[in-house]
Amino acid sequence: MAYIELPDDLPGIRGPMAFRPETAKPLNELAEVLLRSDNSLTRGERELIGTYVSYLNDCFYCQNAHGGLTQHYFQCDISTIDAIKVDPERSDLSGKMKALLAVAASVQKGGKHVRPEQIERAKREGATDIEIHDTVLLAAAFCMFNRYVDGLGTDAPQDRMFYVNRAKSRAEEGYAGYNPYH
Amino acid sequence: MAYIELPDDLPGIRGPMAFRPETAKPLNELAEVLLRSDNSLTRGERELIGTYVSYLNDCFYCQNAHGGLTQHYFQCDISTIDAIKVDPERSDLSGKMKALLAVAASVQKGGKHVRPEQIERAKREGATDIEIHDTVLLAAAFCMFNRYVDGLGTDAPQDRMFYVNRAKSRAEEGYAGYNPYH
Repeated sequence: MAYIELPDDLPGIRGPMAFRPETAKPLNELAEVLLRSDNSLTRGERELIGTYVSYLNDCFYCQNAHGGLTQHYFQCDISTIDAIKVDPERSDLSGKMKALLAVAASVQKGGKHVRPEQIERAKREGATDIEIHDTVLLAAAFCMFNRYVDGLGTDAPQDRMFYVNRAKSRAEEGYAGYNPYH
Repeated sequence: MAYIELPDDLPGIRGPMAFRPETAKPLNELAEVLLRSDNSLTRGERELIGTYVSYLNDCFYCQNAHGGLTQHYFQCDISTIDAIKVDPERSDLSGKMKALLAVAASVQKGGKHVRPEQIERAKREGATDIEIHDTVLLAAAFCMFNRYVDGLGTDAPQDRMFYVNRAKSRAEEGYAGYNPYH
């Protein structure tokens, strides 16, 4: 039971988005630009940053919703995503992605936790200024989304396949004009 | 010196917003809805929530920019805002605002830190579901803005009067269509 009366028992962020469409609009526009618009980071890489930060914030709904999307884009299984979340440095990700995930992990703790040497590493691994900017803002935005979802005490389906099964249609629909009832 | 090359040494969030107008647009639209659109919480009360969360996140730029706006709306001096930040429960604020600031402080720590009894207290003090929703999202959004500003290592003027002096024109301009060069 969420802390406020949300429409139709929609899970996760869908309840508050249906409750308050005025704020859902810019939130979804932000997600669309950060996660889907033209970028030198792939959609899968950007969903992974969101998944990883949601994992660090212990937000079950977000880490599974965006983990499902990452898995869809990467065409991999849940266990691969789970292993990356626990220890990205030991994964098969590129050096650039490992460096960007380290920056994201610091942003999750707080803006001042980002260290100059983390940025230098990202640049050395080939990250552009836009990629660094977008990683910081993505990580910061998921610190917002995760708090929004859990701070209102929303419910989340516990069966992880719920999220995996929705990923393909979510990837087709995107975030702009997002309909929380879908 | 910020971690990436930002235009014209603009301070705080203005640098990244000028660097990446595509993300600045939804960020400012979100700020406009949350902080300025019609609401049973006054503009001053909503700026205060942002100021308080920015203080808890130790973000100098945001706590002073929004502290200046709060002061402008409340028509009070810096010391009043500073005293509220340190101990809102001892201030002259309404019981409802004290309860909402307690919710905001929990959101700042993480979504799961919000406790049912904090929400019950807010409702008992007269807070509506929309006010509770907006408080949670405002606190979450400032956890994003603060991380965005500090995670990119942006600079901030240290003279607090810089922010106080800008507050009146910032209140007139609003956030929608915000121009970071102003």
